[in-house]
Amino acid sequence: MLAANAPARLVRAHNGILPSARFLAQYDSWLAQAPEDYCDLALGNPQSMPLAGFVDALTKAVTPKDKNWFAYKKNEPYSRDVIQADLRNVTGRHFDPEDIFLTNGATGALMVTLNSLVGAGDEVIYISPHWFFYEGMILNSGGTAVCVKANPESFNLDIDAIERAITMQTRAIIVNSPNNPTGRIYTPEQMKALSALLQASSRKFGRPIHLISDEAYRTIIYDGGEFESPSNFYANSIVIYTYGKTLLTPGQRIGYIALSPEMDELAAMREVISTSQMLCGWAVSSALMQHSLGAIQSLSLDLHHLQEKRDRFVAGLRDCGYKTHTPEGAFYLTPKTPMADDVAFAERLATRGVFCLPGSVVGMPGHLRVSVTASDEMIERALPIFAEENNRCC
Amino acid sequence: MLAANAPARLVRAHNGILPSARFLAQYDSWLAQAPEDYCDLALGNPQSMPLAGFVDALTKAVTPKDKNWFAYKKNEPYSRDVIQADLRNVTGRHFDPEDIFLTNGATGALMVTLNSLVGAGDEVIYISPHWFFYEGMILNSGGTAVCVKANPESFNLDIDAIERAITMQTRAIIVNSPNNPTGRIYTPEQMKALSALLQASSRKFGRPIHLISDEAYRTIIYDGGEFESPSNFYANSIVIYTYGKTLLTPGQRIGYIALSPEMDELAAMREVISTSQMLCGWAVSSALMQHSLGAIQSLSLDLHHLQEKRDRFVAGLRDCGYKTHTPEGAFYLTPKTPMADDVAFAERLATRGVFCLPGSVVGMPGHLRVSVTASDEMIERALPIFAEENNRCC
Repeated sequence: MLAANAPARLVRAHNGILPSARFLAQYDSWLAQAPEDYCDLALGNPQSMPLAGFVDALTKAVTPKDKNWFAYKKNEPYSRDVIQADLRNVTGRHFDPEDIFLTNGATGALMVTLNSLVGAGDEVIYISPHWFFYEGMILNSGGTAVCVKANPESFNLDIDAIERAITMQTRAIIVNSPNNPTGRIYTPEQMKALSALLQASSRKFGRPIHLISDEAYRTIIYDGGEFESPSNFYANSIVIYTYGKTLLTPGQRIGYIALSPEMDELAAMREVISTSQMLCGWAVSSALMQHSLGAIQSLSLDLHHLQEKRDRFVAGLRDCGYKTHTPEGAFYLTPKTPMADDVAFAERLATRGVFCLPGSVVGMPGHLRVSVTASDEMIERALPIFAEENNRCC
Repeated sequence: MLAANAPARLVRAHNGILPSARFLAQYDSWLAQAPEDYCDLALGNPQSMPLAGFVDALTKAVTPKDKNWFAYKKNEPYSRDVIQADLRNVTGRHFDPEDIFLTNGATGALMVTLNSLVGAGDEVIYISPHWFFYEGMILNSGGTAVCVKANPESFNLDIDAIERAITMQTRAIIVNSPNNPTGRIYTPEQMKALSALLQASSRKFGRPIHLISDEAYRTIIYDGGEFESPSNFYANSIVIYTYGKTLLTPGQRIGYIALSPEMDELAAMREVISTSQMLCGWAVSSALMQHSLGAIQSLSLDLHHLQEKRDRFVAGLRDCGYKTHTPEGAFYLTPKTPMADDVAFAERLATRGVFCLPGSVVGMPGHLRVSVTASDEMIERALPIFAEENNRCC
């Protein structure tokens, strides 16, 4: 329960994240009582030691080279240059370094972006299944969160449903590809259709609808699949990225915002973002992470091994009777639960030391979200438990 | 100029920080063209190499001890315990670890605190001379910023003026002791008077007015002076602190929020702050800084040397004709400028490689704010330039 005087926007946001907050508290209590051989499949957290290259890079970056090493940092030119080159590789486009803003992960980037775009009365659309803080963060920024369901079979964007959701209050749409939790990568055809809709709607209502492209998982792609940044299809795009997925170091908080070079009022938007960044609490990546960015940006978890774990886990779950699709990207499988109440089923698994996110927290009631960042051993230990709990229900 | 669609709260906030933003841009351009022997007195930035102990602590903390080393971090118990012990030393009181929240510096702490307290229509009082982002951050949170001048001679709190400023919309007051820029430490008598006023006003208007105690400079105190936390005098106090001043590592961003154990609705306020922290972009200190906190919290810049620099600088400025007071704490001197236009005078000094903050940015028009974090050499080089520019004006 919140204090009686809490601001209205925060009360709404708090209600919006109640299932997630309840789960996170539950998860903490599971961990506190976890057996030694627990299987943590709940979050995109590392289940093995950090990359040696990451540790080496930070160790080097800790040694100061000048008096300003740990002085106030803004969006430092050397960091912007690293990201500009990366964006050129990913998108084939030239982003101006002045349009790149260093943030505390993708969540920090989303905070600054929403603070920059959303006022009272503004609506922000997000696609569900969804990352569990979108709704709360939109509400906390003072806006209205508008949930649009993806196609329930394919998990593709439902362009007609998005069209129905757009109003003259629509300020932005968050697109998360590869999607957390479904792993769906939206095709160029999908993005072209979305872009045409957003362009027509922006014209119709006389103000731009911004596309917030949450690309946190854009390097986590299986089977040699292709990802093309949604920002390649729509001028008023804002790219959000974090290094926390590729490096599996989510506690170290480094990511960025990048404004598309084709954006309307680009110089004025640049001013909006940099002002927000200051007013959101000097929301800039730490000195150390900026110093190490050049060395860490080319590192990655072992994607081949991750894909092996995905394959083993999908096959294993199917073998023991679960219906689950094979994700194209991101960290998660979403098996259907053998009972309708996914929270209760997650609790059953937890009593046996297997920790999963109930799907109802991420817009997939009747499913679980399980992370393939688990170790091989965890997966092997978890599968028989999944099988037994399925049998208990059927 | 901001984009046409920027939210109203951000437009107001942007206007509120225009002088500061203009100065920061100006400062960047000074640095870009700085002569080799420039004297940087503008911000509380280090002008010598980082503390060896700080580098050692980070070097140790970089080496992972388990798979969770760089995993998602919240307000970790080991960090909370360090801060609890520190708060006990400083305040003599027992803060519950659950009421301590790790943030990205004091600015990050202020962001989360304002997000937790302030909704549309709420007023937040701040005392001027002031830190240059208070007004903008209050406005960005959706509230109204109410500036109350300190006594212009003593820089003490003007309790009568605060009383006149309190309305039924007053949600909080920010008290910054030792004050940036004046260095004033408010006496226990001042704080008792403020506390009595806040208690009476809270009763009168039927809701608590929170005291946000910005104690960023509480360890930077000269002449063996004493600091007693304003939170010792008023139950509804929220302590904000950063390690960036004591360590002179403002780019590394670690600080905290602590709720007074005597606070009304304490459990509900705890929920408000932790919810805000998530919704403000997982606004929690990085894994590395939490791992190193135990080792760095007892380190400090050389306060004796800082005081020597303060004394040399005050004496030197007075010798060449400036009127300036001797600060009790914090990093800054505030000499009166020999011409009324402090921005123009700062620009004159800058053309000669001496960079100072114009006082009008921090509520002291007709003054400069100069930082004694400058090196001895910078101070010796700057003094003759101060003298010559004073002579040019007189």
